[in-house]
Amino acid sequence: MAASIVVRRYQGWHHWTPLKLQTGYLREAFNIQMGSAAMYPLKKKETKLLRRQLPCGNSHVTKRTLHATPLCFQEVMLTSERYEVQRLPFAHVSDRDLSFFECLMPGGVITDEDELKPFNVDWLKTVRGYSKVLLKPRTTVEVSEVLRYCNERNLAVNPQGGNTGLVGGSVPVFDEIILSTALMNKIISFDSVSGILVCQAGCILENLNHYLEQQDFIMPLDLAAKGSCHIGGNVATNAGGLRLLRYGSLRGTVLGLEAVLADGSILNCLASLRKDNTGYDLKQLFIGSEGTLGIVTAVSILCPQKPKAVNLAFLGCPSFSQVLRTFTTCKGMLGEILSAYEFMDNECMELVKRHLKLVNPVAESPFYVLIETSGSNSAHDEEKLSNFLEHVMATNLVADGTLASEDKKIKMLWALRERITEALACDGYIYKYDISLPVDKLYDLVTDLRARLGRSARSVVGYGHLGDGNLHLNITAESYSHSLQEAIEPYVYEWTSQYCGSISAEHGLGFKKKHYIHYSKPREAILLMQQFKAMLDPKGILNPYKTLPVKAE
Amino acid sequence: MAASIVVRRYQGWHHWTPLKLQTGYLREAFNIQMGSAAMYPLKKKETKLLRRQLPCGNSHVTKRTLHATPLCFQEVMLTSERYEVQRLPFAHVSDRDLSFFECLMPGGVITDEDELKPFNVDWLKTVRGYSKVLLKPRTTVEVSEVLRYCNERNLAVNPQGGNTGLVGGSVPVFDEIILSTALMNKIISFDSVSGILVCQAGCILENLNHYLEQQDFIMPLDLAAKGSCHIGGNVATNAGGLRLLRYGSLRGTVLGLEAVLADGSILNCLASLRKDNTGYDLKQLFIGSEGTLGIVTAVSILCPQKPKAVNLAFLGCPSFSQVLRTFTTCKGMLGEILSAYEFMDNECMELVKRHLKLVNPVAESPFYVLIETSGSNSAHDEEKLSNFLEHVMATNLVADGTLASEDKKIKMLWALRERITEALACDGYIYKYDISLPVDKLYDLVTDLRARLGRSARSVVGYGHLGDGNLHLNITAESYSHSLQEAIEPYVYEWTSQYCGSISAEHGLGFKKKHYIHYSKPREAILLMQQFKAMLDPKGILNPYKTLPVKAE
Repeated sequence: MAASIVVRRYQGWHHWTPLKLQTGYLREAFNIQMGSAAMYPLKKKETKLLRRQLPCGNSHVTKRTLHATPLCFQEVMLTSERYEVQRLPFAHVSDRDLSFFECLMPGGVITDEDELKPFNVDWLKTVRGYSKVLLKPRTTVEVSEVLRYCNERNLAVNPQGGNTGLVGGSVPVFDEIILSTALMNKIISFDSVSGILVCQAGCILENLNHYLEQQDFIMPLDLAAKGSCHIGGNVATNAGGLRLLRYGSLRGTVLGLEAVLADGSILNCLASLRKDNTGYDLKQLFIGSEGTLGIVTAVSILCPQKPKAVNLAFLGCPSFSQVLRTFTTCKGMLGEILSAYEFMDNECMELVKRHLKLVNPVAESPFYVLIETSGSNSAHDEEKLSNFLEHVMATNLVADGTLASEDKKIKMLWALRERITEALACDGYIYKYDISLPVDKLYDLVTDLRARLGRSARSVVGYGHLGDGNLHLNITAESYSHSLQEAIEPYVYEWTSQYCGSISAEHGLGFKKKHYIHYSKPREAILLMQQFKAMLDPKGILNPYKTLPVKAE
Repeated sequence: MAASIVVRRYQGWHHWTPLKLQTGYLREAFNIQMGSAAMYPLKKKETKLLRRQLPCGNSHVTKRTLHATPLCFQEVMLTSERYEVQRLPFAHVSDRDLSFFECLMPGGVITDEDELKPFNVDWLKTVRGYSKVLLKPRTTVEVSEVLRYCNERNLAVNPQGGNTGLVGGSVPVFDEIILSTALMNKIISFDSVSGILVCQAGCILENLNHYLEQQDFIMPLDLAAKGSCHIGGNVATNAGGLRLLRYGSLRGTVLGLEAVLADGSILNCLASLRKDNTGYDLKQLFIGSEGTLGIVTAVSILCPQKPKAVNLAFLGCPSFSQVLRTFTTCKGMLGEILSAYEFMDNECMELVKRHLKLVNPVAESPFYVLIETSGSNSAHDEEKLSNFLEHVMATNLVADGTLASEDKKIKMLWALRERITEALACDGYIYKYDISLPVDKLYDLVTDLRARLGRSARSVVGYGHLGDGNLHLNITAESYSHSLQEAIEPYVYEWTSQYCGSISAEHGLGFKKKHYIHYSKPREAILLMQQFKAMLDPKGILNPYKTLPVKAE
C-alpha cells in the first residue's frame, strides 16, 4: 500500500487509528485536528491539571527538586540502621575543623540541623545519613583546600550535586562532610563556532540548556531531573537520559574536565578540543566514578546545534513485540532524525494518571512508545515521520497515536514519560532497578517479576530508553519490607547476568548496588578498580561506602 | 537571491561556477553534466591513471599496506642511531625462549631476518628497530601466555596491528619482541538489531566494513589506512579519521574490549551494551594507550546503519576564511546529514597530481573542501545539498565545485584527500604533525611555518579534518636533516600550546612525540599517567620507549 500524505506543520494534537485506515481518511484525520479550536480547551484543561497534579502542593514537580519540593516529609530510616554497614574509622568533625572551614569560606559552612536535613536524605527517601556539616565552596581552589585538609585529618567527604541520584550515592551513609557544588554555578565560556561549553560543576542542567538555546545550541543530554541536577553530578555519574540515542554518551561529548583529587591536588584536563591523543584519557576515569576518585569541579562539553524542527509521536502498541518491531522500522525510516525512542507499559500510565492526574492522550494500550525526531528541515522531517506512521499503522504495529510539533504540546507528551519516577514516589516505597538487556529480552524481566511477586508488591512497572536497551524496572509497596527486598534481590541481578546485561545501565552503583557489581563485572576488573581507588584515594575519604565493595569483601 | 533548483539523483560529475551564476544557468549546469556520455571517457581515463599512479608498480596503493606494497626499499636508519635513546635492561631473547614460543604456537614464530624486515620499520620509513622475533598468536589465551612468560623473563614486547601508525609507535625501538595481531582476525558476533559487532583485534578495518555493508551497516570509523590497519590498533591508538564528525570518537562507539595485561591476566570487559554504569570504565584506559598498558585482543563496537544516500561535493575556495565560512554555513544548512568536512590546500593538490597522477576535477584554487552527506532519504539530502550549494555560490564562498553520488565517483573524489599521505611519502622524508587547534587559527600555523622554513623545506602543506579542528601539517625534504628538524620542533609545539591546542589530535605520541606531551598536558596529569603505567606494567615490558617520558625525565 502506497498512501501518500503531505503532512505539514502539526500545530496541535493529532489522533488516528489504523482500524479505519484509508488514504482519504488518514488525511482527514490529520487535518481535522489541525484547527486550533479543538486544541485550546485541551490545552487549558491540561494546564489546570498540571497545577493540581502535586501531592505536596508545589507546582514545579517536573523538576526533581527535593530541597524546594519534598514529596512527603515523613522521617526516613537511617541507612546505618536499615543496612548492615559499619562506620569506618574516619575522624569526627571537631570545632577546630569547623573554624578552619569557616575561615576558608566565610558563610559557606552550614551546621544547622534543619537546614542540613534535605542534604542528608536522598530524593527517593530510601537512605539517610546524619552529617553535621555542609560545605558550599565557590571555587576549585576552595575545594582543593577542603580536600587537602580532610585528607590530612582523615575526615570523610560526600560530594553532592543536585542530590537527584537514585542509588543512594549522593547522601552520607554516616556523618561524612557534605561538599555541595551548588555555588559553583558559573559558565566559564561558550564558543558558538565549535559548540563547546565550559562551566563549573554546579551549573543546573536545565539552566545550561536555557542558556544554550538562546544561542541556538542545546545540551547533549536531557534528564527528567534536569531542573535540579548539576552538570558535575551528571558527569560524575555518567548520566544517560533521553538524548543518548542521538548524541551519544558523556564519554564522547565531555571533552575535558577539572577534578580535585583526595589529597587536594587539582587535575586540570579542561581541554576544549574535539580530538586530543596525548597520553591516557584520564578524564574518563572520573566520568562515572560517582565522586569516589575525585571531585569534578568544571566540565568542557560539546553541544549540538538546536534542531530547527522537533516532532513527537506518542503511540499505543498492542504488545511488546510490536514495540520492538516499531523500533526497527523507525530506525530504518527515520534514520538520522530519530532523537528518542522511549517506552512505558500501561501500569506506568495508570500511575501518572492516578498520582499526577495526567491524561492519557491515546486509547488505552498495553504499551506506549514516544518517538522524537529532531532535524534541520521541518518539511523533510514531517514527510519522513508521516511515511513512517503510515507504515506502522498499515502493518498494525501501532493501535493509536498522537503527534505534536509545538513546544507546549511536546512538553505535555514528554511529561507522561518523564514524570513516571515522580508518580512512583507517590505510590509508596520504591525498589528501583535500572537494567541493560538485549532489547528482545527487555520486558520479560518485568513480566517474570510481576508473576513472582504477586500481591506482595503494589505495582511492578517497566519503562525506559528502549533505543539504548535500557529498562527501568520499578516495584512499589506500602513501605520498606526486608522480605520483599529478598524476593527481588539478587533474583533481578541473576536474571540480568544470565543475559549478559548490566545491573546498572545509567544510575550507577552508589550505596545500594555496590555489592552486586560482580553480576556485571569480572573479578579481575573489580580488583583493578580497587587498585585505582587505593592509588588515587589511599585513605578512602572520598564518598566512602559507595560504588566498590571494599577489598576484603 | 532565492534561486530554486530541484536537484535530483546525481549520477556523474557536475561542475558549476558562480562566475556565471544565474538561476537558469545553474539548472543547466547541473543538468548538462548528468548525461552519461561525458562521464564514461573520464571514468576510463581515471581508471587508467589509477593503474599507473604507483611509484613502486603495485596497484593497491590506496591501502596503506607496507608489507605488500612498500613505497621505496631504501634502508632506513636505525632509530637507536638517529635518536638519543638508550636500551633499557630487558633480557635478550634466548633459544630457550624461542622454544617456548614455538611450543606454545607452532608455526606462529618468525625469526627469518628478511621476513622480519617490514615489521621492524614504520610505514613512513622514518624509524627502524631490529627485533629478532615476531609472534603471531591466534587466541587471547596465547597472548596471555606470551605476556605472562615475557613478564617473568623481563622481555620487552612491541604489540603491532597493521603497522600503519605515523608516530613510530608500532615498531620496536631496539630488539623488542613483536607481537602481531594479524592472525587474530575472526568476527565473533554481529547483532543486526542493535548494530553491535564483536571481533578479534586483528580484523582489518576495511574487511569489517565490507562485512557490515552486506548487512546494511558500516563501521563508525574510516581511515585512509583502512586496507591495512587492524581494529585493535585503531582502538589502542584511539584512531579518529573521516567519520568522527558524524559518528563521534571511539570513546563513545567502543562498547567493550578485552585486553591482556603485562602479567598475562586477561581483562574481559567485552560487554555488548550501550549503557553500563557498574564501576569505573576500565576500557577507556586502554583506548588510546598505544599498547603501553595492555594488548587489546577483542573489541565490541556500535555500528551505524549504512546510509541510504551518500553525496560528495568537492569545492574550490578562494581563501581559508572562506573555507571556514563555508563550514559554518554547511553545519547550519546540512545539519544532521553532514558526515565529513575535510580540507586541503593547493600544495596538497599539486603533490597528488605530481606523484600519483590524480586529476584535479575543479578549477585551481588556493583551498579545496570535501563535504560528504549521508542520510536516509536521497531526495531530501539532495535538496538540502542543492540549497546549500546555491547559497555558497551566491555568496562567493566557493569558486568552483563538483558533485558525486555514485560510488565509483565518490571514491575517486575521496582519493584526492585520502591519498595525500601517500603522495607525501613520494615527496621525500616527511616531518609529520597532527595538531588540534581552534579552527580560526588552524591554517595560520602552516603559513607561518612556510615562511619560517623557506627553501630549506621541499613542501609545507596543510590538510585535515576541519570539522574536528584537526590539522595535518606536513613538511617534506630530500632526506632527514637534524637542522631542519630543529627549525620545526619545538616551534610547532610551542605555537600549538600557545592556543591551547593538542600536539597530537589523533596519531598519538608513540616514539616520536612522547617528549612533547607537556605541551598539551599539565605536570599533574603526566605524573598520574606514569603512576597508572607503573601500576599496570611495573616492569615496563609493554611497548617501552613509547607514549610517556620515563619518570626520571
